[in-house]
Amino acid sequence: MKAEIISIGDELLIGQVVNTNASWIGEQLTMAGISVYQAVSVADNHDHIFEALETAGKHADLVLITGGLGPTKDDITKQTLCDFFGSELVFNELVFEDVKEIFRVRGRQVSELNRKQAEVPDNCTVIRNEHGTASGMWFEKDGVIFVSMPGVPFEMKPMVSNYIIPNLIEKRNLPAIFHKTVLTQGVPESEMAAMIENWENSLPPNVKLAYLPQPGIVRLRLTASGKERADQVSIVENEITRLSEIIGDYIFGFDKDTLEEIVGNLLRKKGKTISTAESCTGGYIAHLITSISGSSDYYKGSVVAYANEIKNKILNVKNKDLEKFGAVSEPVIIQMAAAARDMFGTDFSIATSGVAGPTGGTDEKPVGTTWIAVATPEKVIAIQFHFGEHRGRNIRRTALMALDMLRKEVVN
Amino acid sequence: MKAEIISIGDELLIGQVVNTNASWIGEQLTMAGISVYQAVSVADNHDHIFEALETAGKHADLVLITGGLGPTKDDITKQTLCDFFGSELVFNELVFEDVKEIFRVRGRQVSELNRKQAEVPDNCTVIRNEHGTASGMWFEKDGVIFVSMPGVPFEMKPMVSNYIIPNLIEKRNLPAIFHKTVLTQGVPESEMAAMIENWENSLPPNVKLAYLPQPGIVRLRLTASGKERADQVSIVENEITRLSEIIGDYIFGFDKDTLEEIVGNLLRKKGKTISTAESCTGGYIAHLITSISGSSDYYKGSVVAYANEIKNKILNVKNKDLEKFGAVSEPVIIQMAAAARDMFGTDFSIATSGVAGPTGGTDEKPVGTTWIAVATPEKVIAIQFHFGEHRGRNIRRTALMALDMLRKEVVN
Repeated sequence: MKAEIISIGDELLIGQVVNTNASWIGEQLTMAGISVYQAVSVADNHDHIFEALETAGKHADLVLITGGLGPTKDDITKQTLCDFFGSELVFNELVFEDVKEIFRVRGRQVSELNRKQAEVPDNCTVIRNEHGTASGMWFEKDGVIFVSMPGVPFEMKPMVSNYIIPNLIEKRNLPAIFHKTVLTQGVPESEMAAMIENWENSLPPNVKLAYLPQPGIVRLRLTASGKERADQVSIVENEITRLSEIIGDYIFGFDKDTLEEIVGNLLRKKGKTISTAESCTGGYIAHLITSISGSSDYYKGSVVAYANEIKNKILNVKNKDLEKFGAVSEPVIIQMAAAARDMFGTDFSIATSGVAGPTGGTDEKPVGTTWIAVATPEKVIAIQFHFGEHRGRNIRRTALMALDMLRKEVVN
Repeated sequence: MKAEIISIGDELLIGQVVNTNASWIGEQLTMAGISVYQAVSVADNHDHIFEALETAGKHADLVLITGGLGPTKDDITKQTLCDFFGSELVFNELVFEDVKEIFRVRGRQVSELNRKQAEVPDNCTVIRNEHGTASGMWFEKDGVIFVSMPGVPFEMKPMVSNYIIPNLIEKRNLPAIFHKTVLTQGVPESEMAAMIENWENSLPPNVKLAYLPQPGIVRLRLTASGKERADQVSIVENEITRLSEIIGDYIFGFDKDTLEEIVGNLLRKKGKTISTAESCTGGYIAHLITSISGSSDYYKGSVVAYANEIKNKILNVKNKDLEKFGAVSEPVIIQMAAAARDMFGTDFSIATSGVAGPTGGTDEKPVGTTWIAVATPEKVIAIQFHFGEHRGRNIRRTALMALDMLRKEVVN
């Protein structure tokens, strides 16, 4: 099965909005075993939309259309769909009930414009919108499926995941596909590739590996396809077990997991608490931890000791060590971690101190030089790293590495 | 002038990469007065790229192509360009010098694959790539300009900004256009629209206003077009002066400014220092401030007092006030701000305490209830806000509001 994605909206062409819908849909289709031929963004214009539908119908047997719907935009897109599919707009009582319900929840009045949103082409199957007023519309023409959806991501996504893909799997006899993404931290992509080369070469022919790098994280997505879903699940799980024997130390989670969530869940499960003392990360680790709802269960707080005098005054780092070794040094980072653990009365603590850049580097401690310490009830572990030259990425990599060092201590 | 954007790369279709190039190019073209007809993403495939070039040439008189270039990808795209434009690949000594220079800086050896990158079609104008090994290529065919560029954003962007747009302005006699974006904080878009309605209606016909909202910030972009650039600049500046008389209190900067930069520059200029005491923002304000290089000139540090006992133990907030009024209250926020200013010995301090959500709300203090305080050498200002229900956005809005409250105190 081959698909084309059409995104409607002037705001996409003038660059006011980045087209994240097309990439999200592309990913969902790919994961369902449907190849994407192309993705096109077009203007809110009758002839242009009509031409895009015509062209897509020649390339693909599935055309997913987003945008151009909604109370102020409906006219052009719906009229174009009617012209293209030879339909009449008819008032749909069930759609109107949904629209009224949305307004009831929001405590607002239904306007005449909203009533018109309940008018849908008479030859489409309506896909209900649980989060907004514009319905999805499923058409078939000359063996090609066309589905029109609203452009608002949280209205469109459930239509794709809960309706369109399940329907295609059922009706079109698509292969069973299973994906699982292994999340690793601490090894760059090129080194990872070398470490797992033999494993990768021994993968069964129906299993594909994709590298999905992000700053500080390498994601490995395994995809198996075949007849029975259960078989694909066990093939993938089996390969991940083999992979864990090689790079288990670097794997921190799977699929949509984040390090801050994983660490948070571990701490909550074990009834342990954590605090932070941050210099070069400047509060970013605290921010990651507290971005998780419920983090107050295990997170007590942080001292962001940006200035050296604060490292001494609040975290009791010895002035003679600050003078002799500098703020980016083993003796200082150990004192910072220990002080945070004491002050906040937590089981664990994290401390960071580094040259984030772009200025402040020296021959001895170039930009990217970073010390991270984790204090546990038994010991303080301190490790020096050399990250890159980009300030934002150094902060992010330091935070991820620190959370992963903590994870390894909490998990044991 | 009408443009089409072609983005080449399988990674765009399978959703591995979001196509930010197309929106960025769309914005640049729009700002130069060139309308964008459509944007299409296609696969790394000869026939598909050929068809896209053919189709685009019928729609537009400018076709900007990104991607499909680079040492491992070159073959298909360059061969397709040769077939489409009837060219031969020839070795270009100047391009090879650039490639060698890139490798010299990176301390790596030039491979045979890289030598091939210096082969370019004989009927194009080469656009030098200062940041990578794949050159840009400018072709003209039947009155249509086609430009092929690498897909790596930091290689592509300088080609558009420094070469393509200046060349088009010169050769194609485009109108002179001037943009300036006014950044405001503290008023939602709908209220802003009502406040400036009369001003907006009185704008001269060659001046356009666009609303560009972001969480917590409303951006107003003014665009004037005409014959002479100098005239457009003065028309826009004049309108911004008029606008400032109405909403001056909410304007914190222009164009690409950020609040953390503006506040940082003000503090540095005045030789003043700042510290923070964060509860609901959990270190996010510290992170924003320290994301700016050189922030150690004015930023001393933060106490992230996430747990109530920490508010008492480290920030000396009175336990009886925590018990009587709760952590999200005026007496507590005032004590937090005052304590941070004392502890860190700074001129100013910021404190935050709120119910970020999604849990933790009560009838009296629903999710989104937030106190912010700013302490100055003379006084402590505390204000209560009601933000929304979304945790991430509450944290962001609180941080921006706090920085803006600080800005107003520092600027005076």
